[in-house]
Amino acid sequence: MRVSVIGGSTVDEATYETARDVGRLLAERGHTVVCGGYGGVMEAVCRGAREHDGETIGVLKGTDPAEGNEWITTPIATGMGDARNALVVLNGGACIAIDGAAGTLSELGMAFVYERRVAGLDTHDCSAFEGFRAVETPEAAVAYVERAVE
Amino acid sequence: MRVSVIGGSTVDEATYETARDVGRLLAERGHTVVCGGYGGVMEAVCRGAREHDGETIGVLKGTDPAEGNEWITTPIATGMGDARNALVVLNGGACIAIDGAAGTLSELGMAFVYERRVAGLDTHDCSAFEGFRAVETPEAAVAYVERAVE
Amino acid sequence: MRVSVIGGSTVDEATYETARDVGRLLAERGHTVVCGGYGGVMEAVCRGAREHDGETIGVLKGTDPAEGNEWITTPIATGMGDARNALVVLNGGACIAIDGAAGTLSELGMAFVYERRVAGLDTHDCSAFEGFRAVETPEAAVAYVERAVE
Amino acid sequence: MRVSVIGGSTVDEATYETARDVGRLLAERGHTVVCGGYGGVMEAVCRGAREHDGETIGVLKGTDPAEGNEWITTPIATGMGDARNALVVLNGGACIAIDGAAGTLSELGMAFVYERRVAGLDTHDCSAFEGFRAVETPEAAVAYVERAVE
Repeated sequence: MRVSVIGGSTVDEATYETARDVGRLLAERGHTVVCGGYGGVMEAVCRGAREHDGETIGVLKGTDPAEGNEWITTPIATGMGDARNALVVLNGGACIAIDGAAGTLSELGMAFVYERRVAGLDTHDCSAFEGFRAVETPEAAVAYVERAVE
Repeated sequence: MRVSVIGGSTVDEATYETARDVGRLLAERGHTVVCGGYGGVMEAVCRGAREHDGETIGVLKGTDPAEGNEWITTPIATGMGDARNALVVLNGGACIAIDGAAGTLSELGMAFVYERRVAGLDTHDCSAFEGFRAVETPEAAVAYVERAVE
Repeated sequence: MRVSVIGGSTVDEATYETARDVGRLLAERGHTVVCGGYGGVMEAVCRGAREHDGETIGVLKGTDPAEGNEWITTPIATGMGDARNALVVLNGGACIAIDGAAGTLSELGMAFVYERRVAGLDTHDCSAFEGFRAVETPEAAVAYVERAVE
Repeated sequence: MRVSVIGGSTVDEATYETARDVGRLLAERGHTVVCGGYGGVMEAVCRGAREHDGETIGVLKGTDPAEGNEWITTPIATGMGDARNALVVLNGGACIAIDGAAGTLSELGMAFVYERRVAGLDTHDCSAFEGFRAVETPEAAVAYVERAVE
């Protein structure tokens, strides 16, 4: 399946490695990463996926398909700026959120609008939404989204 | 100025009256309401504004400018579905959030993406964002957004 | 009613005056102008409308409601770039096209997608579409769109 | 490279076979098809590409990635309705237009907005735009777009 991975565009090294692990796990299990296509969590998850031959879709703010990070296999230019956040979560069957700030909060909201299940790794507390599960590890995040779409 | 008012599309009577009061106050002070254009908080705030000769902009999901609530003076059809949430907060200089669920959470996130100040009345806790202020009354909400854009 | 006016963003003086006349006529008949909000035909039609107390909506590419021309009464920021062209024609009950290049062609196509009637003043030949009428004067353009929505 | 293929959603058999040929040629030369994802020309070009192991991206109007034709390898849901036409042409380095009506006209306009070269097979006459070339065969269409992006 396709899994939207959302999170901060500037992250510390530990968070980067967490996101990279998520990418690796998704690729190993045959899932495709969908993300916003730029740096931080987006880059790390694409990198982790690509290092294990996974596919990665980057839904970009701008009009140039080449402007995303180097680990994207299928860039999608939108020219819509931040309004493209809706498309990031729409194109995954479930969602993993890692860290993140305002953009991630908007994507979390959109994920619940579209009734996607979300595993959260050290991200905004969304426990008020029943589709949300706070998890501690990349393995738990991937396991949650896999169960969510069965 | 224009103030985006976001909140639940189905609300109890007390919340409806709170939103209507916000609309009244905004109109009395010469502000224009921007909202998503449908029911609940959106209807109540438009109604409160119109009852005091205020202007109201409804940024709609669908393609029919006539599909919004009856208190909208300027409907804007987008045909973009929920992705139009970004436009709701973009078109106000500041934001008041009242109650609300997933759609409101996405709009809160977008408000912080666009660096809008947000007064929150019994809505999601966004105290992690410096532009957010939880308030207790419609008067305090309007006072906060007025100070925010000075 | 609301009438979308589309056309070139850089125009010669004669075209500018034609568009200004269209704006004047629309305002005199109580119609609201909807346009893309920038220069050329967009500026001229807003100016003509405002000089006769008409209302003008500018559906902007960018995220700043203040970036449009000075004759807009209701700016709508979209942040969607050129994809906002769809919203320009969607928000009028009919359309008047004046001159124009690629952007105008895309708006003409969208006008027919949304089944809007279009009066064309020295614009792309769309006579293959039944909703299109080539006209010679601003008066004829306004008369056509008024009849179109009866 | 990626090539946007635009055209009518309901077509006669000859047009269907032309579009299928275009898909075959693009796949044989290693190009990826980008299209609107539904029937007619969109289905035929995806089918032709898939029958020769090509990749196909369908940029859909709705919110369900599964709603496109069966020959799409990468569906992208937008939920934006017809405004997604802008994204169809944005995501190809060049464009081939086959037949088509209003939606295709809007995409042609957008293609010129984004300065894409367009090969036209029995489509709207866009000879006023320098990037447009009317061609007679699928081979000529593919040759034109290949030269266009060198």
